[in-house]
Amino acid sequence: MKALEEKILKEGEAIGTEIVKVDGFLNHRIDAKFMDEMGEEFARLFADEKPEKILTVEASGIAIACSAARSFGYIPVVFAKKAAPNTMTEDFYAAEAKSFTKGTVSVLRVAKKYIEKGDKVLILDDFLASGEAGIALCEIVRSAGAEIAGFGAAVEKRFQGGAERLRALGIKVKSLAVIDRIEDGRIVFGTDKMEEEYAE
Amino acid sequence: MKALEEKILKEGEAIGTEIVKVDGFLNHRIDAKFMDEMGEEFARLFADEKPEKILTVEASGIAIACSAARSFGYIPVVFAKKAAPNTMTEDFYAAEAKSFTKGTVSVLRVAKKYIEKGDKVLILDDFLASGEAGIALCEIVRSAGAEIAGFGAAVEKRFQGGAERLRALGIKVKSLAVIDRIEDGRIVFGTDKMEEEYAE
Repeated sequence: MKALEEKILKEGEAIGTEIVKVDGFLNHRIDAKFMDEMGEEFARLFADEKPEKILTVEASGIAIACSAARSFGYIPVVFAKKAAPNTMTEDFYAAEAKSFTKGTVSVLRVAKKYIEKGDKVLILDDFLASGEAGIALCEIVRSAGAEIAGFGAAVEKRFQGGAERLRALGIKVKSLAVIDRIEDGRIVFGTDKMEEEYAE
Repeated sequence: MKALEEKILKEGEAIGTEIVKVDGFLNHRIDAKFMDEMGEEFARLFADEKPEKILTVEASGIAIACSAARSFGYIPVVFAKKAAPNTMTEDFYAAEAKSFTKGTVSVLRVAKKYIEKGDKVLILDDFLASGEAGIALCEIVRSAGAEIAGFGAAVEKRFQGGAERLRALGIKVKSLAVIDRIEDGRIVFGTDKMEEEYAE
């Protein structure tokens, strides 16, 4: 998605060789109009999969997921929680996700009643880095006996290998912008070779 | 907002005398269409204040804030963070918010560059209980030298006094549904007397 690449270059910031900061429109300040444009793009990319539900994880995934839900004709959104709140009293699916950059482990939780057997679930997230969060969300969907319609990320950091790990699990992965590498503080985009293979 | 009261009665759940759980459409599964309807209602309620920016707090406030932003013609949304992420490297405003039900204290943080002097900021949140989070968000807006256009909550638990505390600070408060009390597991709504006084 050309507009996203341009926005990342204009408003984003590379920190070291691993971190891309897009606090200006996605992770702290949100450009709701741009979320809607990204939502439309996800709806186009996953139209054939006809998802019935979107699963994401708090917090930054929520805006994107709601915009995409709208573009799919208002399908339900479920967001996994990183902490068990005191109102989460029922049974839930849980899966661990390590954060390599933060050095922490989160347990993602989804109440069982919100992902049902047979649901076609599209998983969306803001970032796809090592794929830890994505794989945890996939585990949750599969634990529920539901079907993974695909995985969509706004920003993929290809050099951290997450897309490859997810595709190895047989999952269709689409990212709106693929960062190939960060070189001397410069963000370098790549076309997604594996995605091209997928299209052939 | 009659539709919200009906949804709370149909899909919500009272836990004890203090907690109202609306995980089915707001705090875990999200009904994006309903978020948009609530967003429109906020835009109607605060039309005269002409807000230029919306401030909320992660995670459940994000969906509501983005929907409202759209109804205001796509004004920017900023969400306060409850933990300082490793990408938050710049100066930020911080304010403490106690959670009476959880017995914890969160520090809410907003990067200084995202709330500017003179901004007219509408604060939105999913719940208004004791008002701790709301007051913390107000402190942040005022620290920035910005103006508070108002405070809007989807669900107000009037018996916890938050609306009164905010109004005592001179803030216009509007809630889409006002819960007067929880009685024998039953949620009882009240019209907002102070809001009626405000309208006179």
